[in-house]
Amino acid sequence: MKTLKRSYIREILDATTEETISFAGGLPNEKLFPLKQIKKATNKVLKNVNALQYSKSIGDINLRKKIAKIYTEKLDFPTKEDEILITTGSQQSFDIISKTFVDKTLFVQKPSYIGALGAFKILNKKLEDFETIENLEGRLNEDDTLYLMSDFSNPTSICMTNKQRVEYVNLLSKKSAYLIEDGAYSLLSFNGKIKKPIASAYKKSFHLGSFSKIVAPGLRVGWIRTSKENIEKLLIAKESLDLHTSTLSQMIINQYLEDNDLFRHIKTISFEYEKKMQYMAKCMKEYLPSFEFEKPKGGMFIYGKFEVDSLELAKKALEKNVAFVPACVFDVNEEKSTYARFNFTNTSRKQVKRGIKLIAEIISKS
Amino acid sequence: MKTLKRSYIREILDATTEETISFAGGLPNEKLFPLKQIKKATNKVLKNVNALQYSKSIGDINLRKKIAKIYTEKLDFPTKEDEILITTGSQQSFDIISKTFVDKTLFVQKPSYIGALGAFKILNKKLEDFETIENLEGRLNEDDTLYLMSDFSNPTSICMTNKQRVEYVNLLSKKSAYLIEDGAYSLLSFNGKIKKPIASAYKKSFHLGSFSKIVAPGLRVGWIRTSKENIEKLLIAKESLDLHTSTLSQMIINQYLEDNDLFRHIKTISFEYEKKMQYMAKCMKEYLPSFEFEKPKGGMFIYGKFEVDSLELAKKALEKNVAFVPACVFDVNEEKSTYARFNFTNTSRKQVKRGIKLIAEIISKS
Repeated sequence: MKTLKRSYIREILDATTEETISFAGGLPNEKLFPLKQIKKATNKVLKNVNALQYSKSIGDINLRKKIAKIYTEKLDFPTKEDEILITTGSQQSFDIISKTFVDKTLFVQKPSYIGALGAFKILNKKLEDFETIENLEGRLNEDDTLYLMSDFSNPTSICMTNKQRVEYVNLLSKKSAYLIEDGAYSLLSFNGKIKKPIASAYKKSFHLGSFSKIVAPGLRVGWIRTSKENIEKLLIAKESLDLHTSTLSQMIINQYLEDNDLFRHIKTISFEYEKKMQYMAKCMKEYLPSFEFEKPKGGMFIYGKFEVDSLELAKKALEKNVAFVPACVFDVNEEKSTYARFNFTNTSRKQVKRGIKLIAEIISKS
Repeated sequence: MKTLKRSYIREILDATTEETISFAGGLPNEKLFPLKQIKKATNKVLKNVNALQYSKSIGDINLRKKIAKIYTEKLDFPTKEDEILITTGSQQSFDIISKTFVDKTLFVQKPSYIGALGAFKILNKKLEDFETIENLEGRLNEDDTLYLMSDFSNPTSICMTNKQRVEYVNLLSKKSAYLIEDGAYSLLSFNGKIKKPIASAYKKSFHLGSFSKIVAPGLRVGWIRTSKENIEKLLIAKESLDLHTSTLSQMIINQYLEDNDLFRHIKTISFEYEKKMQYMAKCMKEYLPSFEFEKPKGGMFIYGKFEVDSLELAKKALEKNVAFVPACVFDVNEEKSTYARFNFTNTSRKQVKRGIKLIAEIISKS
């Protein structure tokens, strides 16, 4: 099963046509991209020829200042610009941090973001999974690494409680392990409430963020928030990967943030996404009553449980031009599973209804 | 000396101010960027919201077709779009190829591009250097990898003869080793003549290219040219690094190539760069007669030999606000050297004269 992850995603991509109803990807809705504002920002930025020149590996200082401000003011996590390293999408962080700091065991929660697992695996990191903090207690050692998504996790969309966060801080402190806290979805909270990152109470940490879900993913701009000393070390890996993140992309986002209210935009997206989630949930309850799930409070996915093997079902669905992701791909050992992830952000109501009904038909026929 | 490379480059960056005359970087001249055309292309591209969305890991198909056409028509190297993988700058190729194909010894020519050495080292690849093909003959084995820059190499600016290329093809074929041929400067030929890549005569090869020197580096768009089968394998590493290269950057370059004559633009740049090179060479002959070098026929650097240790000299020069790169950083083992690299593309005549004179003064005083 070693190459399943890749091959299944490939299979989806290869089998995906204009006709496919895809609940599979993690694509934000392009209708909600601030296209007009990005155009304006781009035109401003392209007055300066430096937007096309090489730039520093650590990233644009103005953008880093703005991200630091978001941490300080919105996440209640005081941050300075020299604690921010710009990355080519949040995805790049996994490689950079792993190369620099991960020598011992890397613990990932079950299930975990497939892109993180892929990046850790290709560097041959020693991966182990765990389900709850109790499973981790006796296994986590000094300088091991813990990878977590505390807010609206991909794939489960679960947001950790404050109590759970405190428990993680206590465990990490006791063991002196590294924390990689992935905040790709942290700001996509339907009620607008944002919890304090675990990293804000634990120094030996890397907090990851991204503009992919809240502005636009095509620009490939993310970041790592950690100590200045850690960033100095990470820069060697960052530089060796791509010298620096696209100067133009960074300057466009910086200008966009300069001229617009990001959090107002996030409010708009979240409002639309919650409506989309509610509609998908309604369809699932109506046509797929055997699919067990809880409605998420943020993020981009409904995660739940079928009564049948989800990989088999996903393959059959794909033949009918409906794509979703079976949970085995989010598992280190790719164990069989009945769980599945449905993305609700990038399909129309019509598609959702039709797609869910088609899956229901497949189940009823088998 | 293990961290010299990084620390010296850091030292340059940290010590560089607005006042510094820098012959150190590999920065193309931003005055020659096709800014107006890029603006036009960007405005066209931003009519389509997909420019801001996630895209395929292999890269934009239209851009890949155009790159394939350049190989076929300009490099006499027949290529199809499925033999092109888009990377985030050519720099990213080193990581992607190394992770996927480099398990045995990796041979690099002495001296070699610092960014390649850095990427190979961080992945703990077994690096060995060689000076001429005769040194390589008895050492290269099956599935070893050979890294070469055949055209206007960084740092030496040497362009291999046709005879040398044939010798490499013969050696590689006999041993069945992998070839990574870095063509970052291949198109920057002062007389417009472009030699056939070694890779065009050897199948087990990766040919690297970049828009950084011929259009604009800030967009971070490069590529790998190899077999379709190899690209399938490379995609796993590419995806794990950053999912894909900036959609916007790719679409801007594609539109730029659609609407403009790239090779006319390259002719303009090459003409200006040759003039700049000639002027620097003249200043060196006049003020630095002890510096031995040959005028390059392309690329961005004058590479030559002092009578004194070049690292010591570079440090003293930096104190006087003049930066150049001592050759020890281009060496796997960072041996002491009297060689040095001077970039001529990104300074004015006034700066060149002043900078060279300042270095001459330092030498005469010591």
